[in-house]
Order: sequence, then C-alpha cells, then structure tokens
Amino acid sequence: MLNISPAEIDRQMDWISSISDKEGKGTTRLLYSESWVEAQKALKELFEKAKMKVEFDAVGNMFATVEGSETPESIIASGSHIDTVVDGGRLDGQLGIMAAYLAIKGLVEKYGQPKKSLRIVSMAEEEGSRFPYAFWGSKNIFGLAKKEDVENIKDNEGIPFETAMREAGFDYLSEKPHFNKMDAFVELHIEQGNFLEKAEKKVGIVNAIVGQKRYTVKLKGEANHAGTTLMKYRKDVVDCYARIVAEIIDKANEIGDPLVVTFGHVEIIPNVVNVVPGEMEFSIDTRHTDQKALDDFAKFIEATITKHTQEREIKLEMNLWMNEPPVPMDQKIVDVLEKVCQTNKLNYQVMHSGAGHDSQIFAPQVPTAMIFVPSINGISHNPEEHTEAVDIVQGIQALAEALKELAY
Amino acid sequence: MLNISPAEIDRQMDWISSISDKEGKGTTRLLYSESWVEAQKALKELFEKAKMKVEFDAVGNMFATVEGSETPESIIASGSHIDTVVDGGRLDGQLGIMAAYLAIKGLVEKYGQPKKSLRIVSMAEEEGSRFPYAFWGSKNIFGLAKKEDVENIKDNEGIPFETAMREAGFDYLSEKPHFNKMDAFVELHIEQGNFLEKAEKKVGIVNAIVGQKRYTVKLKGEANHAGTTLMKYRKDVVDCYARIVAEIIDKANEIGDPLVVTFGHVEIIPNVVNVVPGEMEFSIDTRHTDQKALDDFAKFIEATITKHTQEREIKLEMNLWMNEPPVPMDQKIVDVLEKVCQTNKLNYQVMHSGAGHDSQIFAPQVPTAMIFVPSINGISHNPEEHTEAVDIVQGIQALAEALKELAY
Repeated sequence: MLNISPAEIDRQMDWISSISDKEGKGTTRLLYSESWVEAQKALKELFEKAKMKVEFDAVGNMFATVEGSETPESIIASGSHIDTVVDGGRLDGQLGIMAAYLAIKGLVEKYGQPKKSLRIVSMAEEEGSRFPYAFWGSKNIFGLAKKEDVENIKDNEGIPFETAMREAGFDYLSEKPHFNKMDAFVELHIEQGNFLEKAEKKVGIVNAIVGQKRYTVKLKGEANHAGTTLMKYRKDVVDCYARIVAEIIDKANEIGDPLVVTFGHVEIIPNVVNVVPGEMEFSIDTRHTDQKALDDFAKFIEATITKHTQEREIKLEMNLWMNEPPVPMDQKIVDVLEKVCQTNKLNYQVMHSGAGHDSQIFAPQVPTAMIFVPSINGISHNPEEHTEAVDIVQGIQALAEALKELAY
Repeated sequence: MLNISPAEIDRQMDWISSISDKEGKGTTRLLYSESWVEAQKALKELFEKAKMKVEFDAVGNMFATVEGSETPESIIASGSHIDTVVDGGRLDGQLGIMAAYLAIKGLVEKYGQPKKSLRIVSMAEEEGSRFPYAFWGSKNIFGLAKKEDVENIKDNEGIPFETAMREAGFDYLSEKPHFNKMDAFVELHIEQGNFLEKAEKKVGIVNAIVGQKRYTVKLKGEANHAGTTLMKYRKDVVDCYARIVAEIIDKANEIGDPLVVTFGHVEIIPNVVNVVPGEMEFSIDTRHTDQKALDDFAKFIEATITKHTQEREIKLEMNLWMNEPPVPMDQKIVDVLEKVCQTNKLNYQVMHSGAGHDSQIFAPQVPTAMIFVPSINGISHNPEEHTEAVDIVQGIQALAEALKELAY
C-alpha cells in the first residue's frame, strides 16, 4: 500500500486552496474567474512536472494522463471539480483532484508505468455558484450540455456565460476532442455529512447517490384578529402546517435510513404577532437511494398534506419542481473498493451519498464509484469546512489501491 | 325606544370618516395630524349646534355635555377614540363617538333634559399608530400617562411627540381640568371579530376584556445539510416547533372558549430549501377573560415548550414581554344593558372582547361597560372594514336606552 504523508496532503491543499477570488479563510473560485484560470494553469504545471500529458477540452475541463504500456486506449480516471461555492471550504471538489494526483504519482513512482492509462480529471464546474447552471464540466464531457442552456444566462454582475468562457480562453463551439471514453471513474470527495465521523470510519465507499424530490407548498386559510376570533372559527395555516410537519417527520423516522425529509423554508403572511396567519409557503426536500421507496414516500407526503388541508378547509397548491432519480454506483467498482479496503485493513463503511456529485453524471455513462472521507461536523460550503489530513490518508490509499487493481 | 335611522348613521359616518390624512377608501387620521385637528373641530361644531357644552382637556380629549337638571355633577358618559390606524376603516373608534351623539341628541329631543348630565367623550388617541404609545387619550383622563412616557418618542418622520402636540394646540403641562369624574361610562365599538355575525346577533354586551400574554421564543438546534444528515443525527428546530404548535393548539381547543392562542410570527435561519433549519424565532399570543385560566394556560405553554426542546436537545430562550390582566366590566352596567335589551326585544348576546379598548383604562376607575355591533367578516384595521347601518341601529338603541335608564 502507498505511504501517503498527512503533511504532504496539507501542503498541497494549502497551496491549491489559496488560489481564490477572495482573501481570507476558505476558497472562492467561481467558474472562469481569474483564480479559476490560475488554478487550472497551476495544476497543469504540477501535472506536467510529474511527466503527465495535459489536455483541455473545449469548455476547460482538464485531463492529465499517464499513458498505459499495454492498452493505452483503456482509461482509468479519477478526479473532481475545481470550482467552489462563494466562501467555500478548502476541500470540496479540489481534494478529489489532488487525491487523484497523489495516488497516481505515488503509484507510478512505486510500481512504474501502468498497463492501462491513468488519468486525472479536473472538472471545470459542478456547483452552479456563478451562473444558474450546475454540472457544466461533467455534462460537457458526455455531450449532455446544450448551447441553449447557457446562451442567455448571466452572473450576478450581468456578465453573460459565453463572454466569461471566451475571456477564460475557451469556446465550446470549437471542434476539440471529447474525453468521454473511460473503463472506470472513481471520485474522492469529502462526505459533507457527519455519518463517517459518527460511525468513526475513515473511508466511505459510496454505492448510490440519492434521488431527490422538492416541493413548494402554498396554503391559504384566513387571516384573522388573534384576539377576537374564537379558535373554532379559525382557518389557521400554521396549525395546519404543524400537523403536516409532525406527521411526515414521524413517518420518515418510522421508515428509517436512508430516507430523509427536510422542511427548510417557510414564509407566512402577514407574519405579525397578533394576526392568525392566513397564508404560507413552505418547502419539502426528500431523498432516498431507492426509486420506489422515494416515490412511495412522495405519495405519503401528498396524501398527508391533502388530508390536513381538507380537514381544515384550507386551500392548497403543491408544486413538485425537482424530481431527480437515484443513481446507483457500478457494483464492480464498489466491489473493487471494498476488496482493497479489506485487504489493506482500512477502516471503511459502504454508504450512500445524500448530496449530488459529478459522479451522478458519470455513472450512467461509464463504470463509476465514489470514495468519501469524513467531514468534521459535516460542515461544508463554508470556510469552516475541515478534515484533518490524517483522516484523509486512508481515503487516498483506498483510491490508489483501486486504481492499481484496475490499471496494473 | 328611540327611532334611529340607518340613512342618518350612514350620512354621519360618511361625513366624519371622510376627514382623513389620505384620499381614497378608508380613513387615516393620526394623532395631532391636520385631519385630526379638523375632525375634532368639526365634531365640536356639530355638538355645539345640538346645544352641548364643549370642552377640551390639556391633551386634546374633547367632552360635550348636556347638563343634568337634578344632579349635574353626576356624569353619564359615552364615546370612543377619534384617531385611526394608517389605512383604517370608517367605523373603528369614530362610530362610538357618533353613536353617543345620536343617542344623546335623540334622548334630549324625545325626553327633554336628563336628571344627571350626559356627556360625549371624543378621545384623542387609542391606536398607537403615529407614536409608539397607545391609550394616550384615556390614560390622560385618569392621570395615568407620564411626561417621561412621551418625552423622547418620535413619529416615522422624526417629529417629536411634544412638537406634534403643541402644533395641534395642546400642552399637557398646562393646568386644565381633568374630566375623570363619572357615574358610568359606556363605549360602543365595532366587534372587530366575527362572533356576532356567526351567532346572527346585532348587539354584544361586553362583560370583560381579555387579559393577554405574549411570548417571543427562540430555538437553537443545528443547521445541517438536508441530504447528508440522517434523521437521527438532526436537531431540527422546525420539527420541534411543529410539536409545540400542535400540542398547544390541541390543549387550547380542549379548554375551549374564550381561550385563544395564536402563533402569528415565525422566522427561521437559514430558511433555505436544502438545509435543516438550525435556528428559529416565533411568537405566541394567548388571551383569556379569567386571570387564573390565563395563568394556568401560560404554565402549560411554558412546560410544553420546555419538554419538546429538552427531548430534542434544542436550546431555548423564552421571553414573556406582554402580560396584561383581564379587565372585567361593571356588573351593574352590564345588568342595565341586558335589561334594556330584553325590555326592547333587541337581538343581543353577552360576550367578551378579545381586543383592547379605551374601556379597559376606564373600568378600574369608573363603572364601565361596552356595546359591540357586528363587523362583516371580522375585518378591521383595513379600508374593507364594514357593517351595514341597519346592523348598527340596535346597538345605538341599546346605548340610548341604557343612558336613559342611568340619567333620567
């Protein structure tokens, strides 16, 4: 097994995460910004120093390849996205690129040229933080993004998507090669949850990414004076909301993991102390790794809301505006990961991902799996995002052993 | 019984409610504004035409008196407040002044000079709409307002209270007489609720004004990623809130009228779809006519909140920032009102007031009661506030008969 030094992880992550649009703690590196161009260029130099062949596609995804000795057209790839959210942490996305670099560099140093090609992928964009479009990097690799998708979108400062892209040196209309042929893709990422930390595990082998449904629900009852309207004459939307939330959360707890449901957003009208609330809008976000389980729970949600609103004569509008299917990871790659963790006595756990990742775009196209490393307190998309380097070592070792198994 | 004409009610209400700071539907007449000065002046002329003696106190409360023939120092008074909220209706406050005028004028015309004096009171202010101070009129009558209370307060345009008062021609430091001696005070007001309408009654005899407690409650759990945090690892404040609301409303329904409880205000942090809410603030407003019942329910509220937050390890801050006792009306005056309603076959109901009124300031000082007339849909503090004149007639007749009973 490779010897990965925590100090080396910290050195590399401090260096790459310091390339930011803003000074201070954390990293802000939006698609096609100055620091984005600088980071891709800096990584290119790093990878070229390690004698890898570096290429860009038409939108700025970068590929660094160590050619295979026997079947160089067979590609075993690893990587993640180089962009961050505004005031993001030092690990989200870029750790996956650096982990691929440390693993592939270590493998070549220790075992020489692989039989199949090994490739680092530094993807242009995943977060959707600058423009209202996410997975721009991975979708372009597989020809899933359309010109029309970004033709009319602008950032917060009014800069059109295409202008930003061309100023960064890329033009998606040019006839550059795609890099969509792979035998396997393995993405390492921080968990962004607290499951590994609570379970005291260092490596998560992801076997599925959750499907997700999001609703906006509007309730309309009657705004009334809080003093002069007897309880029996009220159509109180907050009363109705409380029953809906309690019953749906109770049911989710009864069904158990990996089902989650969240009531994250709520606005009430008029929202004053002495008026019975007459209108409200709230959100529901529910996720599961199994399509049928997710669909069944959505039916329960809809029936519960309908029941409580009808009982209270409250008008209902319910809008399911996000409905993404679960994405299973490739079982063969999951098996490889589990085998190398067992062989090398790594402290692992097979688990699912509750958040979206580039791997969900890859998985329907090429054999794909993910490795999670712990996130302290599950904090992410925040400058406080952190994992001790010593807790990342086993994840990179698992990645390296899997790449060795697949490419040597 | 007096013959009160609906057309005359409409004519007078249209006239007085048209004196407004703003054009259009509804009335805006803030304390010491131009339209406030104009309205009090117009009423003075109206009352003087009816041969009443009109006087102002130091803050602008107006008193119009028909002197009694036998014991003129015994005063039977009726009236309400001349100010309105911003974009208020045409009935709130001013109907009580006009009802007193129509009743007293009608009594004198029909029955001649009363034995005791009859007095209309047009109070300067009740709403607290221009300055952050309510019941300025009634509190000054009984010497309950202090100079310090208004010394440093300003309206939204930065005009100090005292400047506004002096510009309107009043100076609370001058040595003018108080008008605090009364044998009885009866205030007619719109219900501002839907009780009389639902019960199909035209006259409400108010036997108590509710006591009121208001809380601000802050919950602090943990903000977490909506996808990556399993249900069992959450400290979800909205989940906790739902249990609190449902249990407290269930208990209020079980206890029954006249107890009410309202969760009118809520803010959650960060209030986004895909984050388990970590913090929230909400309000509770609860009211009852009986002090012990109100105190007992407040204990239940506090215990319920404490229980649910402790069960979920959620930090709690609870602030009881309003705690006003119930105010019973004078039983003898209530009896007089009930007797005249029965004698004259008026369609009445004894009830409580769920909102505050000038009468709650009067009641501890002089024998006081209130008459309610219906409010269509309970709408008030809104240009849509309305009651058909035909539904006000019986209220004014009840008032007139009670004044006759007390003063003749």
